[in-house]
Formats: sequence, structure tokens, C-alpha cells
Amino acid sequence: MLTQTERWGIFELTLQGPSGGNPFMDVKLSATFKYMNRTLTPEGFYDGNGVYKVRFMPDTVGEWTYITHSTVQELDGICGEFSCVEPTEDNHGPVRVKNRYHFAYEDGTPHFSFGTTCYVWNHQSQELQEQTLESLKAAPFNKIRMCLFPKHYDYNSNEPEHFVFPGSIADGWDFSRFDTEYFAALEQRIIQLQQLGIEADLILFHPYDRWGFSTMDAETDDFYLRYIVARLAAFRNIWWSMANEYELLKEKQMEDWDRFFKIVQENDPYQHLRSIHNWIVFYDYNKPWVTHCSIQHTELLLTKEWREQFHKPVVVDECRYEGDINHDWGNITAEDMVRRFWDGMVRGGYVGHGETYVGHKGDSEGLDEVLWWSHGGKLHGTSPERIEFLRRIVNEGPVGGLNPVPMSMLDGRAGEPGEYYLYYYGSQRPAFKILDLPEDREFSIEVIDSWNMTITPLEGTYNGKFRLELPGKQYIALRIQRKYA
Amino acid sequence: MLTQTERWGIFELTLQGPSGGNPFMDVKLSATFKYMNRTLTPEGFYDGNGVYKVRFMPDTVGEWTYITHSTVQELDGICGEFSCVEPTEDNHGPVRVKNRYHFAYEDGTPHFSFGTTCYVWNHQSQELQEQTLESLKAAPFNKIRMCLFPKHYDYNSNEPEHFVFPGSIADGWDFSRFDTEYFAALEQRIIQLQQLGIEADLILFHPYDRWGFSTMDAETDDFYLRYIVARLAAFRNIWWSMANEYELLKEKQMEDWDRFFKIVQENDPYQHLRSIHNWIVFYDYNKPWVTHCSIQHTELLLTKEWREQFHKPVVVDECRYEGDINHDWGNITAEDMVRRFWDGMVRGGYVGHGETYVGHKGDSEGLDEVLWWSHGGKLHGTSPERIEFLRRIVNEGPVGGLNPVPMSMLDGRAGEPGEYYLYYYGSQRPAFKILDLPEDREFSIEVIDSWNMTITPLEGTYNGKFRLELPGKQYIALRIQRKYA
Repeated sequence: MLTQTERWGIFELTLQGPSGGNPFMDVKLSATFKYMNRTLTPEGFYDGNGVYKVRFMPDTVGEWTYITHSTVQELDGICGEFSCVEPTEDNHGPVRVKNRYHFAYEDGTPHFSFGTTCYVWNHQSQELQEQTLESLKAAPFNKIRMCLFPKHYDYNSNEPEHFVFPGSIADGWDFSRFDTEYFAALEQRIIQLQQLGIEADLILFHPYDRWGFSTMDAETDDFYLRYIVARLAAFRNIWWSMANEYELLKEKQMEDWDRFFKIVQENDPYQHLRSIHNWIVFYDYNKPWVTHCSIQHTELLLTKEWREQFHKPVVVDECRYEGDINHDWGNITAEDMVRRFWDGMVRGGYVGHGETYVGHKGDSEGLDEVLWWSHGGKLHGTSPERIEFLRRIVNEGPVGGLNPVPMSMLDGRAGEPGEYYLYYYGSQRPAFKILDLPEDREFSIEVIDSWNMTITPLEGTYNGKFRLELPGKQYIALRIQRKYA
Repeated sequence: MLTQTERWGIFELTLQGPSGGNPFMDVKLSATFKYMNRTLTPEGFYDGNGVYKVRFMPDTVGEWTYITHSTVQELDGICGEFSCVEPTEDNHGPVRVKNRYHFAYEDGTPHFSFGTTCYVWNHQSQELQEQTLESLKAAPFNKIRMCLFPKHYDYNSNEPEHFVFPGSIADGWDFSRFDTEYFAALEQRIIQLQQLGIEADLILFHPYDRWGFSTMDAETDDFYLRYIVARLAAFRNIWWSMANEYELLKEKQMEDWDRFFKIVQENDPYQHLRSIHNWIVFYDYNKPWVTHCSIQHTELLLTKEWREQFHKPVVVDECRYEGDINHDWGNITAEDMVRRFWDGMVRGGYVGHGETYVGHKGDSEGLDEVLWWSHGGKLHGTSPERIEFLRRIVNEGPVGGLNPVPMSMLDGRAGEPGEYYLYYYGSQRPAFKILDLPEDREFSIEVIDSWNMTITPLEGTYNGKFRLELPGKQYIALRIQRKYA
């Protein structure tokens, strides 16, 4: 019987080859995978100790053949076949853009993005990483932003055990090789996230650096990118984020970012989602290699405008964090965090969560400076359960996602005209509103308190123009649905 | 003994003259007032029933003489004199721009502007007007925005008894005459405001109109403006606001607004403050006839930028209102209203209050649609006492007013470098902050909870760079003052 790999699983071809010299740089390896008249050619990579691998994510059920190509004779021309079988229940494939402004897994299941950020949770102690996974299991998030390089910044001073490159800050780095133990550990975490239904939004470059990883030369940058893509592209739950706060990498030019996008685009046979995250100035998301916006901005009321500017899904990955640290970006209230999620979603976008509590004195002393935003660990805030509540409402909404229904910027409203409307009044607190629904059909109305997580159906049915009494407090939403006889 | 008029009081010269024809249009009257080598020539006005008046606000103690000028012989060449004496205790003169970004009364007493808005309180029933004055007596406001014309808008449908012009909506208006009863009543209200220490920020034009006052021809506009200035300029507590939401007067061009400014500037002998209030697009406050900015905007964090753009005092007269009405601009929380005051003040500006509660069910039924913002009446909100608290703090601060001390936009800080700092963290809620004070002197620190209105002095003295623990909640300010031995 042929080796079986589930659809969107990984078929991994492991080969023995030369270990002398520097195989990371010296040996070229790839394999062409073929199903019927379709071929894909992922690059292979060197995994140390004379071991070479080619990873492949098949996307079609059936029998696939392959043949390797290499500059080394013993790795070249190796043939084989395997059988791609139906995926297991929770495997829906990689996430794709769908309906222009939204996402879905490749099997068509909608992916409504509810992301969080734990930039370097994978660079912390094993114990803390396990705790993060435990927390994620109970949290409402289905995407996590995380960095390949460690982070040097306020609250971030630890020295990880392994890095992308072998070496140390004292002895310097060997930028011509990779630390395969680092990657094995990273891959384990990506798999664990996959098991939790979480997309790993991998940040390839970032500016918070004391090691020199943000200032490598162009050749090293490209060498790094190709290795990353060769090793990681076959994991169905990864997204590529070229950078966090890209403008703060002062030595990189716009041409560098464009080139990085193109390298990833050319080398990733599966075309995982690609974006880049700004500090203040947006990258031009209209560039063809960008699949979606990955925005930092505090004003979610602009979400609809960004959709119209870029015609791509709008993910506001950072809009400040629930917390109480000294930095202005990290001490908003849970109310504000939840409001931003709603503000963005009823304008047709997606919003990212983050948490930065330093004052959670209930913890043991050693954890006092473990902030979810960077380190993972435990969630201390009160926004996640409200985000879960919102996620349930979005899941119950239009399967194609929420699109704004034209209205003023302040009155957010999403839905499908005539069928479904989700109004959200955010920080407004109207005692009433004049609504204007289609005349020719009946609607049910539910009043949602998005903070207290209640859904109150109103009696009767509604249509046309009428005055609706409201609670006169903040964070109220209305779910209005066409009533079928 | 000569007639005595206090400094910045009104010397009113009353003359009998012809009542035939249309004296409002036909008769020109002015008077030249002279003290030493200084002369001022206010225009006079017709007050009906053959009565003509010239009002004069003397600004210098001593003996003044006058002589009238008129196109009518019996009103021409009338001479006299009066004695200008020291002002009574609460009379500090008109408000002037001082220190470029601030205001002071002409006697040098600082005027820190804490305005409110009751657009057409003066067009309501006498009973309601009296109630408004009672409310103002207990409120922290020293300026009120109010309209000369009545208002037609949501919640504003009443028909006043008197208008600027004689006539009615049914019979039409006589735009060649003025209703002197209207003016007598208005002047009484201006005097009553004066007695409460409140500046009347008179709005000369506005777009909320069913009577045709927003669409008069240019000749009528100018005729109206000259009469207004002749009648009202001698009241020391008036400010001129050319318009509210000027862009919404669709039939007026920018040249019209410029001309209105110039008419007022040329005819007002006392040069009262002059501005104009936008809806969305700012008037160019850099124009020479503008004394200060009168801004509508929701983002007070921009206050410092507006100072730098216009180099004049920044008054944000509208930044939304505490309330619960259906309109987005009228249903913010008291917390938000107070935060906006602080946000603007620690960036060197002044902020205006307004209130729009429709849901205050405690009131008798008839008052349910009396909203402070337009009608006056009672204050129902909880922001005014916090604004009073802020006003006390500002009064205790630098006599020259609060100027921003360079810092990031989000961390507001005003004061005098090295002497006094007022920090305000607004909607942020840091658990601590790293402060950096001058090394060469000692400072005291008070932690202010601007919402709960508490001031907590910290023990000891501080200087240099240090970590300060904070309550980790919103609306916290710090008052840091140099400690003298």
C-alpha cells in the first residue's frame, strides 16, 4: 500500500546526503510533485547530520508521484509516489481570501479571523510555552501573530536557547547555516497551534533587536527567506507576515520589502496569505503580491474606507492592547478592546487582540512581567470572553462574512441588505433610534448588550420607518433578521 | 456733578428724533467720544418710537466728552460729557487674547474659558429662560454660545414671540426694520449673563432655519450686522461668532464670511473677540480679522497642532455632547465629556460643554424634550461638577494659562517647564510611568483622579528620572510643582 497523506497534511520526503562543507548553502534540492496534469515543485532543505527533506502539502485527493532535483547526484532523480486521502474532520486546508474582503479555508468553510498577538511566546521557557497553549485552548482566537526572531524591547530581555542561526550574542552568528533544533521546536508549536485550530501568522522580520537579525545584509535576508519557505510552507496553518512595524527597520528600503514578498510568492507552492504590518505608514496593500491588509491603527471607524482603498480583506492586527502598562498603546480597557473589535467587524473588517497587564498582582512574583502580548502565559483580561461572544454572533451571521451596509461612519452596520443587519452603536448610547427597514417584508429584532453578553429578542415584527427605544447605554448592538413565514 | 459710568460699563446717550419714514434705514447717527487725545466713534441706532441711542463703553477712567453726528439735524452736533469711574469689583472689562494662546479680561485678570452651549435658550419661554439662568448660577461655565436667530432642527420646533425682524412666518418679514422688543429682551439676558460672570458668545448666523434668516440677501445681512454691532458692542461680555457650522449655509460664499468679519471689525470700537465655528471644514483662522479658533472637532489630541497651525487661542466649542439622544454627536458619556476637556486643556486649548439628554424621565413630562444644548433649562448630566473641579485646578495653575510641554500626542502635559506640570493620561490607565523631571530641583507630586475629583499628595519630593506607581485606571492626572525651600 502506498504511503497515505491526508489532503493538506504533509508528505515529508527524507533523504540522506552529504554532510561535509556547508550543505545549507552548497546543496540545491527540490522535488516535483505531480497529480494528473498538475505539478508543484517545492524546494527541499538541509536538516543537519546529512539529512535532507522535501515537504509537500497535497491539495488533491488521489495518487501523486514525485521526482527530486538536486545539484548533488545522490539526491537527484529520486522517484516515488504516495496517496493523498480525505482530510480528517478538523482539517479544512489553508486559509484563502474569499469574497474579496473575507477568508475561508480551502474546503469552503468560512474563516472569520479573530486573532491575538503573542510575539515571542515561542522564545520563552518550555513551561511558559505549554501554559500559552493551555490558555489558547480556552480562548476565542483562531490566529496568532508570532515572530521567528526573538524580541528585544521593554519587558523583553530574555535570551532564548535557540535562534534561527547558530551562534550567540557573545560569539557572533553563523549566518550561513541554520539551527535545526530551533526549527524543530518551532514546527512542533505550529503543529500544536494547528491542532487548536489556530493560524500561525509568522512575522519574518521585526525591529526589536539586539542580536543583529534586523540588520543582516540582503544576501542573508534572502537566504533566510528561502529556507523559511522551504521548511514551513507545507504547514497548512501558516500565514506570512513580512514584518512587524516595517518602517522601524531603518536599514531596509521599500525595494527590500517588495523583494521579500516576491521571494515568498515565488517559492511558496501553496500561496499562503501574505501581508506586512505597519507602525504608522501603511505599506501599499494594492501591490499585487499582498493578499490582505495587516494594519496597525487605533481608529476602527476607518475600516470601510480601507476596504475601499485596497479592495482586499482588512485585518487590523493591532489597535492597542487591553492592559495597564506605561505605554499608551498597552493600557486600554477591556471595554475599549471589545468595542474596537465590534467597530471593525460591523464595517467589514477583522480585528486583532492583545493584552499587556503588568499589574496582575495575583500571580506569583516571577510571572509579574509575563505579558500575553509578547510572552503568552495566562490571559488576565476580560475582553476575550466578549470576543468569544462576538465570534458566536458572527458565526451565526451571513456565511459570506459581514459587509458594511452603507450608513454614516459612526453608525456601524453590516449585513446583507434586506436579509440580515448587525448594527453597533459602540461608545454612543442612544436612548432611541429611528430605523428605516425595507417595507415589503418583516424583520425580527434582538437587542444585544455586547459588554454584558446578553441577547434580548423584542416582541413582534418590524418593517419600514419606526422609532426604536434603546437602553441608552454604551456597547449596544442590534441584530435584525428577515422573518420568513 | 457729571453722570458717572464705571469703566467698561455703558454710557447710553438717548435722543429724541424723527419717527416718520423708516429711521432704521434713513437716519445715520454716531457719536465721537474723546478722552485726552483719544477718540472712539460708535454708531448709534434707532430704538423705535422716535428714540435714538448711542451706547459707549469707556475703557479709561477720567472725564470723557462726546459730540454726535447725524444726517438728521436735530440729532447732529449734540455735545456732552461724563465721568468714567473705577469699575465695581466683578467688572474686569472685556475679554482679550493674552499670551497668544490665552485670554484675559482687560484689567489683566486671567480668563480661562469654560464654555457651554444653549443655542436658543433666549428664544424659549420666559420661565424656561429664568430656569436657565438659575442653572448657570450653579454651573462652572463662564461663556455661553447662543444664537440671535431662532433654531429649526430636531427637538427645535417652537415659534418664538419676537424675532430680530418684525413680522411672522405667515405674513413675512420686514427686513428693513428691527423688532426693538426682541433686542430689549436680548440685552436684558446679556446683562444677566454679565452678572453671572458669563461671556455671551453671540452666533450671528446659523443654518437651522425655516424662517429665511439664513438666506437673506447681502444688503440685508450687512444692514443686520451693523445694527447688531451698534446695539450690542458696548456690552463688555460679548464675543462675536460669525456663524455656527458656517459651511452648512449653502448660499453664503467664503467672501461673504470674510465681509461679515470685516464689517464687525470696522464697526466695533472695542474690538471684541471674533471667530466662526465650522461643521467639518475649518475656516482659515490665520486670516487677520480672526482673534481665536472656534472649532468643532472630536479629537482633542490635535489641540496642540491647531495652536501651531493658527498661532491663536484654540477654543473647541463643540466636541460632542454628554447625553443620550439618537444623534451620534449627542450621546457621549459624562466620562467622555470630561476627558475631552482635560485632553484639550493639557494641550493648551479650551473646550466647550454641551448636554443632550432626552431620557431624563425624572422631569415633568413637558420638559422631556428640553435639551440644555438648545433650550437651556436644567442640567441633568454629571460632567459639570467635574468641569468645575478642572476649573479649580486650572485656576490654581500658571496665571498665564496652560501651555503644552513637548511630549507625545497621547501623553498630554501642560505647564511651565521646571516649575509646574499637569499630566493627564485620559483614557489610558497606566499602572506606572517613568517620569523624567529636572535634576537640579525638587518637586511635589499630587495624583488627581479627575473623575472622582480627588487630589492625593504623594509623600516626599521627586526629581530626575524615576518610576512612579499609578492607580492603573482611567482619567488620572498628575500635578507636579516645584518645591521651594
